[in-house]
Parts: sequence; structure tokens; C-alpha cells
Amino acid sequence: MLTYALQPDGREPLYEQLCRHIREDIRAGRLRAGEHLPSKRTLAENLGVSSITVENAYEQLISEGYVASRPRRGYYVAALGELLPPSPVSPVPRVPGGPQRPAWWLDLSGNQTSPERFPFSVWARLMRETISGDSAALLTPAPCSGVLALREAIAGHLRSFRGMSVHPDQIVVGAGTEYLYGLLIQLLGRGRVYCVENPGYPKLARIYRSHGVVCRCAALDGQGMTVQGLRESEADVAHISPAHHFPTGVIMPVSRRYELLSWAGEREGRVIIEDDYDSEFRLNGRPLPTLQSIDAGGRVIYMNTFSKSLAPTIRISYMVLPPRLAERYLARLSFYACTVSNFEQYTLARFIREGYFEKHINRMRLFYARRRQQVLDALAESPLAPRSRVEEAASGLHFLLCLDTALPDAALQERLRAQGIHLASLSDYDLGGGGTPPHRFLINYSNLPPERLPEALRRVAACLEEAPAP
Amino acid sequence: MLTYALQPDGREPLYEQLCRHIREDIRAGRLRAGEHLPSKRTLAENLGVSSITVENAYEQLISEGYVASRPRRGYYVAALGELLPPSPVSPVPRVPGGPQRPAWWLDLSGNQTSPERFPFSVWARLMRETISGDSAALLTPAPCSGVLALREAIAGHLRSFRGMSVHPDQIVVGAGTEYLYGLLIQLLGRGRVYCVENPGYPKLARIYRSHGVVCRCAALDGQGMTVQGLRESEADVAHISPAHHFPTGVIMPVSRRYELLSWAGEREGRVIIEDDYDSEFRLNGRPLPTLQSIDAGGRVIYMNTFSKSLAPTIRISYMVLPPRLAERYLARLSFYACTVSNFEQYTLARFIREGYFEKHINRMRLFYARRRQQVLDALAESPLAPRSRVEEAASGLHFLLCLDTALPDAALQERLRAQGIHLASLSDYDLGGGGTPPHRFLINYSNLPPERLPEALRRVAACLEEAPAP
Repeated sequence: MLTYALQPDGREPLYEQLCRHIREDIRAGRLRAGEHLPSKRTLAENLGVSSITVENAYEQLISEGYVASRPRRGYYVAALGELLPPSPVSPVPRVPGGPQRPAWWLDLSGNQTSPERFPFSVWARLMRETISGDSAALLTPAPCSGVLALREAIAGHLRSFRGMSVHPDQIVVGAGTEYLYGLLIQLLGRGRVYCVENPGYPKLARIYRSHGVVCRCAALDGQGMTVQGLRESEADVAHISPAHHFPTGVIMPVSRRYELLSWAGEREGRVIIEDDYDSEFRLNGRPLPTLQSIDAGGRVIYMNTFSKSLAPTIRISYMVLPPRLAERYLARLSFYACTVSNFEQYTLARFIREGYFEKHINRMRLFYARRRQQVLDALAESPLAPRSRVEEAASGLHFLLCLDTALPDAALQERLRAQGIHLASLSDYDLGGGGTPPHRFLINYSNLPPERLPEALRRVAACLEEAPAP
Repeated sequence: MLTYALQPDGREPLYEQLCRHIREDIRAGRLRAGEHLPSKRTLAENLGVSSITVENAYEQLISEGYVASRPRRGYYVAALGELLPPSPVSPVPRVPGGPQRPAWWLDLSGNQTSPERFPFSVWARLMRETISGDSAALLTPAPCSGVLALREAIAGHLRSFRGMSVHPDQIVVGAGTEYLYGLLIQLLGRGRVYCVENPGYPKLARIYRSHGVVCRCAALDGQGMTVQGLRESEADVAHISPAHHFPTGVIMPVSRRYELLSWAGEREGRVIIEDDYDSEFRLNGRPLPTLQSIDAGGRVIYMNTFSKSLAPTIRISYMVLPPRLAERYLARLSFYACTVSNFEQYTLARFIREGYFEKHINRMRLFYARRRQQVLDALAESPLAPRSRVEEAASGLHFLLCLDTALPDAALQERLRAQGIHLASLSDYDLGGGGTPPHRFLINYSNLPPERLPEALRRVAACLEEAPAP
């Protein structure tokens, strides 16, 4: 007879305790397959509990499959097959990212925008207003491409800020551009050849390759991706950032834009992805007109993100599909749920509609312009001045610093690493081919503590001093 | 000489107006490549504006590439190559989803949980507290797998509610299970054969195929996916929902669970994905122990979503990786940013930690149990009673209704469609093979307005009456 010490005053209900004991006995082989279990009444009497308790336990074990019952035969232990012996599993690794990342004394290449400038109190207020607003709308599933209010606000912003004429139904909202790239691969097709800029943002090629599609590189010249490089890559899809290339800072002139559009028009199925990730931060004049806005053939997909322009922890990006692709998206991919929560979508819609986004961009543009000037002034006053030259186009949040040295890039970086300074070279962004010129280093001033800059530049200069003469 | 009518009191700055006019003239061919532009002073005098205005306009046009300048030669129109003629683009389609979906008078198959039961005011309060809390943490990018506070809260919930021993670093948080499936394909490999349950949730196979991986089906028996079916599919990855299969409601007994674990252990690289999407809503007794918790070999990936248990517009799901796969995830995929915003992650962490999630689940379980009883009572009292039988296991949010009729499923559905009633048949979830038995229909009571049920059942019965005798 089964005998277990049940705890009537324990936190665990009696039937669960009984379940647990019988389950353990079955799994340990103390109760064998086919073995009869006592009737409910007998076991209840033996354990001093009610029949209901035993019945509940038996029912639970039956639904778990440990116990079976047959009419008039009562309860018995079910056949479980071979039980797997417990085997040791490897220890769990630590998750990197966020606070766990290596802490540099100064990271001159960091490309995250400064979160301190985020208009937190306004955002919080709009969020509160959103929460107190229409709860039914908040809890109604959004269309696959995002809530209409947000797509309308984005279309309005693109119209007034970028001169783009976009219908809200061309817009697809998603949880970050990285997610949208995955969606695009599904939309454009896995058999296509994708082409990114070289040098360029290494994550892009990594994402394409992680999805198992062919991703090649095309070289840049002073006007951006070359059509010749694009032809050599045999690409169907060109992924470019014409407004401001990372890391070289090249701005694509309109002639090259038309050349690329011509390339796209030559063959059915060619597409250009226009990554407009930091166009808001062009420091002088208006942002350049987008490729999308001069594309009469419907071959440009425009992409942008609020993670860059607002805060990195807001995971909202969007793409603008040409009508033909918007139609294909609906036909093939509208079974996906939108990946951004309604709360955030409605809050952002309000933020844009009520003018806060434009205000924020204008404020940030001034802030970054001042920050850039601080960096340029610090450079001019530093011992590095006679041996350095700035390559830039007064746009975006970074420029290239060209150093007059014979020291190989890796050697300089190694010396600086010992001083806690992270300096990325242009060749770090070489995606293959090795054609990038040496001695060019990325200075990203979007989130640079300016007070550390003079000392940092002194250290860079000192490392150069130790170098053999050029 | 260029002459344009500029509006000095307009909203558009003068230099932008000038830019726009010159740009349009170049694009329309009225100004030709190589053509000289007037000097700044001359044009300024001609237009009656300051030289600064013209200089700003020329500078902007130079950076856009429409205009070039050479020392001592002044400004001239740049060569633009072939301009693409504007061509008509197809009209933009309407985005379906959300409010735009066809409105049934009664959708008996709708699988969305009722948003009205979402504890909105508690959630809003926690969100407000989160916003007023540590803004630095909110704006610090989360680790790739989600903020630690949320992963800890989930691990705690899994321990107390599911008896699972999970380290927070095994957990990956993402914007919906659909997104996580895409991540899993990148993690497990594109060369693998994925296998889903047949009948089953059609979206799953659709997602796998949309990602271009081989996805096959394995038949179910009364215990869930069969090992034989799995072997015939030559799968490496089995995607199952052992706690409660959709749509049949089958609960996988522990014997089959061990059989599947044995299958996974037979060959290196085999993996089981345990989709536990509605286990919280088992109506009687405790939820069944998970496959993950009896997996000693580290071959089970456990997945669950808060979109189901909280509200469909909260896009937060998670997966629990066995240590070996957690390591591979870090090595290969940690370059991805987490897809859920920090605001929502911290709010949910609080919601779980402060006990609201458990309270909500308990409340919903009672609510759904009552709702299920209402549906069963309405059935028993309806004219359908003598011709129907319920197939279910008192779990989840749906059951199958077996109708005694000779009418083909499609014919009955067609008749009901004319009455505004959506009734999904089991064969609608047949993913191939056509082996599902006829006359079984899905009744999903998670979001069913009970007051419409008696009338709906009358209509179903009437449609059967018109049918030829069985």
C-alpha cells in the first residue's frame, strides 16, 4: 500500500502533494508500468485524507499520462517507455550587452546617440495621456503594418521634413530596422543577391548572411556606391545610405542617385534600399531630398528608425514600400502580427503629431553642431593638430580623422587600447577586398563626453610620437 | 538670367524657394548640364534678395549634386545623366488587419483572448511608476536577450508556476513568438528539416516556409505528434504544443513526451520546440509539467508569450534555451538588438514580480471556466444538442464540436457564412494529407459574446436541418 507523509497544514494542497509523491515513485521506477494502484477509498483511508483528494490526484496524474484507468479495473501505472537518465548539462553563459560591455575610458567610435537628450518628461506625459486615453484602441490588435495613427503621423513627417509624398498604406512599422531587414528578405526573395557598401556598417552584411542569403559588397568612390561595383557584384538589391554614408560620411550627389535609379530600372526585380538612418542630423541646410522622392519607377524602399533619432531603447523603425511591393507585402506577409506594442505606437504618433519630434530634431541638430565644433576646436588646440586632417561633409554624427603617421592602424589602436581609448579605423569597416586607405579613424561625437577629449587627443598624439617617422 | 517669383513673406525660407526653383529647372531640362549659372551677386540683384540667400541656395544645390563650382569659373549645372521620366505607379492598397477585417456577426473560431479582461488600470499604474523611475536604466540599451529584471521575473514565474528551473541567462525576450521563430531558424540552421503538427496552427508552417526552410508535417494521434510521423518527415526539429494542442485539444501524456525526448537524443542536433502558448489556462488542476522540465539532455527549447496571457497588443514573448544553445545564441546572434522597448520590459517585470501576473492568470482561468460552462449549457439547451458531441480536455480556450450530419463541412460553412457566422472545421487546419476526420468544428470561447450563442446555435441547427439525412 502506498504510504506518504502528507502535510495537511503545508502551503501545497494535499492532492498536489499526493500527485508529486506518486509521480516521483513512477519516475524513479518504484512503481512499475502496469502496476495496480489502490482504489480511491482504500488509499484515502490509508492516508487519512478524503476520497476527493485522492480522486483529484488520480485525475491529475491521468491527464499527465502517469496513470491510466479502465472501467471496473480501476487505476494502474501507465507505460512510460525508456526514461532518460539525467545527464550533466553545461553551465549557463552570461549574457553580454548593456552594462556588461567592456568599459572604455573613451570610445571615439561609439555610434549610439546620447540618451540624456531624450525629452523624457514630454514622452512620459504623452505616454500617460495615451494610457488614460482610448483603452479599447490600445487593446485592439494593430494591422500588420502598424496602427494607422502612427503611419499617418510618419507620412506627415516625411511630407513636411523630407518632401516625400507617401501614403500611410505604404508604411510598415516594425521593432527595429534589424527586424525589418528580415521581413524584406522574405518580401524580396531569398534567391536575390544583396549588395552593401564597402566600407560600411558590418552589421548589415552580418544580418543578410545570418538569414542565409547571398550578400556581396560594392566599393565606394567619393560619390557613394559605384554602379560598376554594383554590376560586378551581380546584385539584384542595392542597400545604400545616400544621405550620409557610415563611416566615410560621403553624401551621394544627385547624378549618382539617378545613375543608381537607372541601374534599378534596367531589369525587372531590381530594388534599392535607401537607409536614411541619420539624415535628420544634417548640420547645415535642409536634409537632402531622398532617393525615394525622385524615384518614378517604384524601385526604392525607404527605411528609417526612431531608435537613432529618439532613444536607442525605443525600438520603432519603419519602411516605405513602393506601391507594387506594398501590395506584395499584403499578399504574402500580412499574416505577421505587428511587432511594436500599441502603447508605444500611439505614444509616438502623438509625439510626432503634436510637433515634439520636429522640436527634438531641431534641438538635437543644434546640440550636435555645437558638439562637433567642440571636437573640432579641441582638435585644433591639441598637439595632434599638425598631424591630422578632418574628412567630413558637415552631416550626421561622425567624421573621419586622417592622421599623418607611418604607424600601422592596428599598432596605433593597440597602444590606445592600453590607455582605455577605443579608436576605430576605416579599415575596421572594410568588408572585404582591403581597399580602404589607412590612417583614417572614426570620430563619432554623438555621445562623446567633451571634457575627456583634450586628454584623449593628447594620448593619441603621444602614441604617434612613439611611432617611427613617416 | 534666372527670374523667379520668390515669396518673402511665405513660410518657406527664401533660399529654399530659390533652391526649389533651380532644382526643378534642372530636372525639367530647362537648365542644361554644363550651363553657367549667374554669379551670386548678379542673381541676388536680379531677384532682389541678399547675396547670402543665393549663396545658401547654391551651397545646398552643390551638396545635393545639382550644381558644381570651380575656382574662378563660378557655378554651373552638374551633369545628371539620364533622368528617369516619371511613370505611373500602381495605386496603394489598403492595409488589412485590426478594424478593417471582415466583421462576422459571430466568429466561433476567433483565437484572440478577450482584451476587456486585461487589468488595464494596474498596468497603467505600473507603467507610470516605471516612467517615473530610473530614467537612466530606461534609456540604457538592453542586452540582446532582454533586460535582466524581466528575465529574472520570468525565471521566477516559471519556477513557481511551472516548476521549471531556469537561469535568467537562458531566456531570450523578443517582440512576439513570430519574431523568435525567425531567430530560432538562424540559431538552429537553415539546413535543418522543421516539422509541425498536422492538423495544426497554419501560421507556423507559413512562417517557416516564408523563411525558406524545409517545413514538413507529422500526423497526430490521440497523444499528440507521433514519433513515427516525425521519423517519416526526417525532421531535425520538432515543433509541438504538448500542453494543449491547437485545434484538437490533445494533451500529450508523459509517455509520449519521453518517447519524443528519446527521439531527440538519438542524433546530435535534434531539437524539440515546446510551444506552451496557452498552458496558463488549463481549467482543472495544475498545469502539466513541461517537456523542458523533464529534459535532462538539453534538447528542448521552451517558448511562451504574454500576448496570449495578457493582451494581444503587448508584443512580448520569450524562449528558454538549453545551455548549449544559449551559448551558441550569444556567439552568433548577440549582435541583434533586443526588439522590445525597455519601458515595456520594465513594466512587465514589475507586473510579474509584484504578483499581478499570477492574479491575472487565476482570474482569467475562472473566467474562462465559467465561459466554457456557459457555452456547454447553451449547447445542451439548444436544438443542436441531440446532434452534437463535445471533444475536449478541459484545457485551453477552445474545444471541438462534433456534429452528426452528412452535410460536407464546406457546405455547412457556406450556409453559415451567409448568416454571418464563422465556423472553422478541423479540416481547415489540415496542413496536407487530408487525414482529418470530418464534421468537427472549432469552438473558441476565449472572446465569444455569450448572449449571441443561443441564436447562433439555433442557426447552426437550422442549417443542419436543411441537410440531407445522414
